[in-house]
Amino acid sequence: MRTTSVGVFRIATIGPGDVSGLMNLIGSGTIDPRSILAILGKTEGNGGVNDFTREYAVSALCTALAPQLGLSPEAVEQRIAFVMSGGTEGVLSPHLTVFTRSKVERPAGPSDKRLCIGMAHTRDFLPEELGRSAQITETAKAVQVAMTDAGITDPADVHFVQIKCPLLTSERVAAANARGNKTVTTSAYSSMAYSRGASALGVAAALGEIGSDVRDEDVLRRYDLFSKVASTSSGIELMHNVVIVLGKSTSSASEFVIGHAVMEDAIDAAAVVSALNSVGLGLAPQSIADRELVNIFAKAEASPDGSVRGFRHTMLEDTDISSTRHARAAVGGLIAGLAGTGAVYVSGGAEHQGPAGGGPVAVIARLSD
Amino acid sequence: MRTTSVGVFRIATIGPGDVSGLMNLIGSGTIDPRSILAILGKTEGNGGVNDFTREYAVSALCTALAPQLGLSPEAVEQRIAFVMSGGTEGVLSPHLTVFTRSKVERPAGPSDKRLCIGMAHTRDFLPEELGRSAQITETAKAVQVAMTDAGITDPADVHFVQIKCPLLTSERVAAANARGNKTVTTSAYSSMAYSRGASALGVAAALGEIGSDVRDEDVLRRYDLFSKVASTSSGIELMHNVVIVLGKSTSSASEFVIGHAVMEDAIDAAAVVSALNSVGLGLAPQSIADRELVNIFAKAEASPDGSVRGFRHTMLEDTDISSTRHARAAVGGLIAGLAGTGAVYVSGGAEHQGPAGGGPVAVIARLSD
Amino acid sequence: MRTTSVGVFRIATIGPGDVSGLMNLIGSGTIDPRSILAILGKTEGNGGVNDFTREYAVSALCTALAPQLGLSPEAVEQRIAFVMSGGTEGVLSPHLTVFTRSKVERPAGPSDKRLCIGMAHTRDFLPEELGRSAQITETAKAVQVAMTDAGITDPADVHFVQIKCPLLTSERVAAANARGNKTVTTSAYSSMAYSRGASALGVAAALGEIGSDVRDEDVLRRYDLFSKVASTSSGIELMHNVVIVLGKSTSSASEFVIGHAVMEDAIDAAAVVSALNSVGLGLAPQSIADRELVNIFAKAEASPDGSVRGFRHTMLEDTDISSTRHARAAVGGLIAGLAGTGAVYVSGGAEHQGPAGGGPVAVIARLSD
Amino acid sequence: MRTTSVGVFRIATIGPGDVSGLMNLIGSGTIDPRSILAILGKTEGNGGVNDFTREYAVSALCTALAPQLGLSPEAVEQRIAFVMSGGTEGVLSPHLTVFTRSKVERPAGPSDKRLCIGMAHTRDFLPEELGRSAQITETAKAVQVAMTDAGITDPADVHFVQIKCPLLTSERVAAANARGNKTVTTSAYSSMAYSRGASALGVAAALGEIGSDVRDEDVLRRYDLFSKVASTSSGIELMHNVVIVLGKSTSSASEFVIGHAVMEDAIDAAAVVSALNSVGLGLAPQSIADRELVNIFAKAEASPDGSVRGFRHTMLEDTDISSTRHARAAVGGLIAGLAGTGAVYVSGGAEHQGPAGGGPVAVIARLSD
Repeated sequence: MRTTSVGVFRIATIGPGDVSGLMNLIGSGTIDPRSILAILGKTEGNGGVNDFTREYAVSALCTALAPQLGLSPEAVEQRIAFVMSGGTEGVLSPHLTVFTRSKVERPAGPSDKRLCIGMAHTRDFLPEELGRSAQITETAKAVQVAMTDAGITDPADVHFVQIKCPLLTSERVAAANARGNKTVTTSAYSSMAYSRGASALGVAAALGEIGSDVRDEDVLRRYDLFSKVASTSSGIELMHNVVIVLGKSTSSASEFVIGHAVMEDAIDAAAVVSALNSVGLGLAPQSIADRELVNIFAKAEASPDGSVRGFRHTMLEDTDISSTRHARAAVGGLIAGLAGTGAVYVSGGAEHQGPAGGGPVAVIARLSD
Repeated sequence: MRTTSVGVFRIATIGPGDVSGLMNLIGSGTIDPRSILAILGKTEGNGGVNDFTREYAVSALCTALAPQLGLSPEAVEQRIAFVMSGGTEGVLSPHLTVFTRSKVERPAGPSDKRLCIGMAHTRDFLPEELGRSAQITETAKAVQVAMTDAGITDPADVHFVQIKCPLLTSERVAAANARGNKTVTTSAYSSMAYSRGASALGVAAALGEIGSDVRDEDVLRRYDLFSKVASTSSGIELMHNVVIVLGKSTSSASEFVIGHAVMEDAIDAAAVVSALNSVGLGLAPQSIADRELVNIFAKAEASPDGSVRGFRHTMLEDTDISSTRHARAAVGGLIAGLAGTGAVYVSGGAEHQGPAGGGPVAVIARLSD
Repeated sequence: MRTTSVGVFRIATIGPGDVSGLMNLIGSGTIDPRSILAILGKTEGNGGVNDFTREYAVSALCTALAPQLGLSPEAVEQRIAFVMSGGTEGVLSPHLTVFTRSKVERPAGPSDKRLCIGMAHTRDFLPEELGRSAQITETAKAVQVAMTDAGITDPADVHFVQIKCPLLTSERVAAANARGNKTVTTSAYSSMAYSRGASALGVAAALGEIGSDVRDEDVLRRYDLFSKVASTSSGIELMHNVVIVLGKSTSSASEFVIGHAVMEDAIDAAAVVSALNSVGLGLAPQSIADRELVNIFAKAEASPDGSVRGFRHTMLEDTDISSTRHARAAVGGLIAGLAGTGAVYVSGGAEHQGPAGGGPVAVIARLSD
Repeated sequence: MRTTSVGVFRIATIGPGDVSGLMNLIGSGTIDPRSILAILGKTEGNGGVNDFTREYAVSALCTALAPQLGLSPEAVEQRIAFVMSGGTEGVLSPHLTVFTRSKVERPAGPSDKRLCIGMAHTRDFLPEELGRSAQITETAKAVQVAMTDAGITDPADVHFVQIKCPLLTSERVAAANARGNKTVTTSAYSSMAYSRGASALGVAAALGEIGSDVRDEDVLRRYDLFSKVASTSSGIELMHNVVIVLGKSTSSASEFVIGHAVMEDAIDAAAVVSALNSVGLGLAPQSIADRELVNIFAKAEASPDGSVRGFRHTMLEDTDISSTRHARAAVGGLIAGLAGTGAVYVSGGAEHQGPAGGGPVAVIARLSD
């Protein structure tokens, strides 16, 4: 019986250009470079517009993997989905998570649903399409393609959808203006939120979490519209959306399982515990014999109403530190405390990803079966 | 039987100059202004050298309380201990905690130990004494005076010692140089750490947590020397140390109890839970019928060895955001998640306050007896 | 012959709460507190949304001046126009500029035009009116009232119009939403730019620099519409615009003269020199015998097209430091170098104040006649 | 008659990884890649410890030049001196300056002294040697080697000495501690200043500007000891000092000339003008027919005494923005204004490089003879 094998490897890094950990795993035969489908990373930049650690990490990875794959660095960047989330505020620790997928012949796989992964991408967007319905619609289509690629038919089997999406720069705004079109915002920093929000609404539409009639003006306003599994990160280095679907399937022979929960607000410890429980794990220190934590994937944001459980926060009024940095630090501190490690993937800007002020939290564990 | 009554009031603020909450409690008779002994606050500045929200808050409080007490604002500042900790990163919420103390005649007080409070202060320091043994020794003396003032004889009954201490500015360094003396550092920001560290060692010496033979060169180096209950904050507005001892005593008729634990590192969720348990509380949401959380007091810092449980953190290498801001955000996120509220007092810079990278965490609860 | 006497005093401060310099001048009889019309200040905050040094400075000044004027602090704030511009980046030095005005009997005043000053204010705005035509129109009216108050009839005699205007906060946006109205932006930081821009367009309309048919959508878009003398600063502490007109009039018996120029971009040294020349001054060190520099008032901004004279700048893409801080630092460095002092009033955010990327620069000199 | 030809090319970049401008000049034959001796760059990071734009730029350049030179990227990094100065605050514009050198046969070179360049490097330092006499002494030796390489015998012909030097990280401090040695500081950010300072003192010693008896304790204290031509930048990517000497020699057949002056403080416009005059240029816009500005190289710092010409600055007390960023922005604004372009090399941290608070400023012009 043919089936799919999915692997997940968390690798600590000592800088955004550090590829040594991955190269060691390739050198030892643990990772077959041809099986690498996606690499998610936390890099130590500011996570904002001028966070060059993301493109530096991608550049270093592509250069290092090129000879392994017999491809040019540019071709590597086309082949593998790289999602670098900048910002390791507080106790968050820079690291990579490498996802591999390969076809295997297995006489007796596990009978339960195991981790599976699928990918797709949209066409390139025009600057004026970002944060608007074109981005929503195209993303929704790509999510469905990625689900098929993952071997998932039931939306309930989707536990995390990671999207990498573009942002606006001065040059891109000017290009739109030169065509006589206005972009959704002229601020590069604000455009990151719009792009993340529209992309998340695309996930919600694809999974039936919301209706398909979302309008331009709903983006960053109708916060009752959201996906419970979307995680979107904007970066300067692309003009299309890359979609990675993580879920569960009986066709997967993976050693890994995935589960998720939704944080209702930035201090929702119960949701984090629930997500850990969903894969059979508990609070740190985890003393479960037959499984271990691989990584946690979560989104964080400053609640747009300016308060958390009735108490005012100051993240949105801070001109010194962007609210995404504040939110990653705080939610990262909570998740790290509950999980027992700061090497978790907490990404900022959870617009339409979970309820306003909250966000999705997914956990991957490795079973020792 | 004469005994002491101690009150604790947590009051949310809408800005560093906001005194309306306190004035309302005075207006309604809930707080007798003459009973106010100390006010601890979290204000929304950067918590660094140029955090003027601390002195602004103190100025606003003194101006508002002056007519209530029939004193000049300057005299109010001498009478009441104001400790403003700048920095409400992440989910931390600006607020004041007002401590009152009065003598009461009570025929039948509680038989168990209840919250008590005592105060003292050192002489003014010279700039060149900050961060050195003079500051340690004088602080130790003041802690003992404050314990006596609180009615505590056994160091085991001390649960939290809050100290407000000075820092160096360019002017103060120049003044020392003009006298032919060198200060421990010429950097204003670094001096905050030295002053906090020496003050904490003073607490440790007073409580017998360390020997009395601490030397100048141990400050910010011998991190195995620390106090489990010291919390020290440096500010530009004074040149002496103010010491506030919080503990338990049978002479107190307070409705409040206090307990504490020590976080071994910045993600020590178990210690926070232990501190909550020590006053009979549990995880959020707290459903205990006979008691409620009033506030949590904790110190946070970036571990000086650059890692947390084996994973690298980037707080000490960040030139954009000071490590104290990072640490407050992360530890604040964890404590807020476990306690269920961001209106907690998490202060940055835990040098010699708890083990390296960790810090003390104290909890005050109100009993409904 | 009755005429008006106008005084200008630049006073260095050692912190946002420092009023000692002003109090000394009052104590020595140099300044009559009843003659104080306006106080412009540079304070050392971030100049952004959470810059509390502005309100702290105003609070300290009002408290100090109250007994001098026999008024409550609140009444002082109504009587005197306080404009605090936060942000003393680079070599900029915190200081106050106090403007006084009084009626004097002078048999033989100077025959040339001397410095005069006038004031007015608009009604309070609704949050949804900020950055839109209502703010433009009301500001234009107030400018004309202030010109009359200054004794100016010819717009050519207006050399600097300083305006203090509101910004949006989370609470204010929510209030507008609750009324079913949308604000021009939901970002507090962005709202500062909109409010400054609309206020500047109000000045331009009042002085005939642009037509009166400005529309909502022109704000922050039609950068060819601007005033050459407007300087607008937004602050959290008010909901109306305060207008201060500085110009020249033969009815003034002042020892002071004023002139101005317009910087075409952020590195327009020639314009600064021209402004200095307009009051008979030259480059630093100024060796003119019969006159001395009192202060320079200028606005700075990052050019919205992302470049200065063909070379890319990075101010608008920086998530760590706001572009207003960058621009103040750079323009402040240039003006300080040409003038020979960092105690100059350079304020950030020059939307519709001078051409895009440039800004007005006015100079006041004291004649020793 | 054999002689040396030196070329200087200023190339704008659109990001730290942008090598297209250089590749175009190589492609067109304007630059022979084998002649490239050094590349100085301004990159758009924070210029602090965690500024990864510097190593990203070097990585991108090495990768791009490797096939051109038939070398591995690592070998390119050994062959060419790369000095990336992070921080393009204010109007400063990211760019590269490429220095080439080749031997040419010229029958009739110019009879005057023209631009020459020489290079050398020290051995690797131990972490505990940084900021101390070992770094001073070794740097002085390397300066003399580089002078010889440039063809300079008279120190008066040296106009600019660019040094790239290491900094301390948590790991490096720990390594020293593990050997039982203490580093000069445990703060990564502070170590940058120590390393820059000791390197500059090495230049001063080599050129006879100071005596050779400099002691460890003089570094960052005896600011009367300085070099008028040293420019030092610290970066995380190396453990030795790289020395580049720029000067004038009759053996050079270059089209370029160089001159310099010393800014006495951060607003010393006269010194900048003097440096421009030294190569026959004037104020912007420069209308000289026979020569054009290529680039200006300057160092900036916040004066350690906290004031500029008697007025307090706030750069050293700012916990939000490092003083090096403030200083670059301000001095960059002044130089850009006087030169007419923001594409100038202004680098932060001028410890012992020029007098306290000032710094060297060198100008290179191209003659059209």
